[in-house]
Amino acid sequence: MKLASLQSSHSDGLLILVSKDMSQASLVTDIAPTLQYAINHWQQLETSLQARYELLNKGEDHNAFPFHPQQTTAPLPKTYQWLDGSAFLNHSDLMQKAFHLDPIVGADKTPLMYQGAGDDFLGGYDPIIAISEDHGIDFEGEVAVIVDDVPMGCGKQESLGHIKLIVQLNDISLRAFAPKEMKTGFGFIQAKPSTSFAPIAITPDELGDAWQDGRIHLPLQVTWNNQWFGHPNGREMSFGFHQLVSHAAKTRKLSAGSIIGSGTLSNADREAGSACISERRAIEMIANQGVPSTEFMKFGDRIQMDILDESGQSMFGGIDQFVQPYSPKN
Amino acid sequence: MKLASLQSSHSDGLLILVSKDMSQASLVTDIAPTLQYAINHWQQLETSLQARYELLNKGEDHNAFPFHPQQTTAPLPKTYQWLDGSAFLNHSDLMQKAFHLDPIVGADKTPLMYQGAGDDFLGGYDPIIAISEDHGIDFEGEVAVIVDDVPMGCGKQESLGHIKLIVQLNDISLRAFAPKEMKTGFGFIQAKPSTSFAPIAITPDELGDAWQDGRIHLPLQVTWNNQWFGHPNGREMSFGFHQLVSHAAKTRKLSAGSIIGSGTLSNADREAGSACISERRAIEMIANQGVPSTEFMKFGDRIQMDILDESGQSMFGGIDQFVQPYSPKN
Repeated sequence: MKLASLQSSHSDGLLILVSKDMSQASLVTDIAPTLQYAINHWQQLETSLQARYELLNKGEDHNAFPFHPQQTTAPLPKTYQWLDGSAFLNHSDLMQKAFHLDPIVGADKTPLMYQGAGDDFLGGYDPIIAISEDHGIDFEGEVAVIVDDVPMGCGKQESLGHIKLIVQLNDISLRAFAPKEMKTGFGFIQAKPSTSFAPIAITPDELGDAWQDGRIHLPLQVTWNNQWFGHPNGREMSFGFHQLVSHAAKTRKLSAGSIIGSGTLSNADREAGSACISERRAIEMIANQGVPSTEFMKFGDRIQMDILDESGQSMFGGIDQFVQPYSPKN
Repeated sequence: MKLASLQSSHSDGLLILVSKDMSQASLVTDIAPTLQYAINHWQQLETSLQARYELLNKGEDHNAFPFHPQQTTAPLPKTYQWLDGSAFLNHSDLMQKAFHLDPIVGADKTPLMYQGAGDDFLGGYDPIIAISEDHGIDFEGEVAVIVDDVPMGCGKQESLGHIKLIVQLNDISLRAFAPKEMKTGFGFIQAKPSTSFAPIAITPDELGDAWQDGRIHLPLQVTWNNQWFGHPNGREMSFGFHQLVSHAAKTRKLSAGSIIGSGTLSNADREAGSACISERRAIEMIANQGVPSTEFMKFGDRIQMDILDESGQSMFGGIDQFVQPYSPKN
């Protein structure tokens, strides 16, 4: 299934199903008013949603209307828990080499993860609002999963069954604040403003064979100011999503609707490019005596990210954002 | 005003007002179904809530019923953003001395803060569930504020006006995981299980002169296994709550219902004791060549925390929790 949330005066959006070819949508608020409600009651509602989805795909849903990704919010416009991993060790290795950081002991066994802010997600076509270009505005191309209730101490294999939905996101980062915040040991606050999500959340079965070992075996196409920037593949994730979920649940339950992210996609093959500027700069620093040549984003810059299936069809509806300066009006 | 959330099949609780003497309560779901709703629409609803509160205090609310704190959830049973500061530098200094840590550069100018999990708050009388005593189970006595919508880049003085409610909490911590998680720079995940909150959220005016400079000038009474443990006063906070809110909003908006905590209360006077075991252990280590004598909590342990006004009246309804081992049933 493909699910999305339509913009409305209700801040949680209105739940819609989107047809497989993304041409049509159907309001399903009679089954579940919001995606949060649907994930809270997934076991009871999945069959009804699936039946409506089949109707929609057959062209037999008489209430269907044309789907416009620009009319959506993030699939969950806000959530009670947003946890982001850093599950591609290739990325961590590059950052360590470029900045001469001490390797984190046990990083190959225990995934890195930070707690993000869930109170204000952006849609995939919303502007990125920043106060200053000096803040080191960066994108991070990622994928994430949405779970139902996960009990405390949940094991890895059991965690796989709690993954109900998959989403695509841009973990917008302000690099000027990151080193200082990391040094405190307390994690990111100012370095991580609102995160944006591609319009569509999909059930794992939509991915077919591309969903394996808790990983998404597809490339993420990243385009910065209309230029190719990278196409790293999700299959090189050093920890599968089930491992990330189990890590997060080690000492506490995770409530339905919690989102757990992969961290920026990163591949060993340099031909795959990168999914964030910071990594490209790290590669430049390693090659050029510590001097990066690529600058961070400027006001007016455009970032596009998309994951396509084998036939070239967008899986999540994509991300297409421009950077805008903050004003009290926006 | 004193507000609380009554346990119900609705996971967000039912909004009630609690009389000043905490003897009576009144269901106000006709004004706002939940505290989250009330804080979302605070400007429009405050006057109606205030009118009902006066009626209740005069004994003229005919629908009033006896108030039992054990029937409440946390004031906000979950929230979209839970940010916890570490705003008592006395505590940070003790930890640094005990563990021979390098001082954090600029810690006297920039508050320490971590992003916590908002998806599963405990009530003040709920058990603390832990998997193992080896996890270093600790309490942390704190206060926090709940804000309405705070715009990106909000200044300190303007932030003061966004503080709508004050709450008291136990930031339960698992010390066995903290050093490793701090070393990653990504902050706490396994070290911070679900946080518990005293039943009542109060508006700042309830504190009278005890609310000054964005600080609560009252002692927190901490009792562990029926023995006095500490009574540190909130007035020694090195950063006021308005500074914490402004720090958090530097690069992003904070949505209504975001909770911002003080960190564990800590006073320079050793006679005031501590509000967490970890700090007492640090004091012991400093005095005794690095060897602490107090152990962390065991299953069956009891922790009580309360903030009283000058007349001895509880301000937030207190916290009284026992530690229980996890079982799939609880």
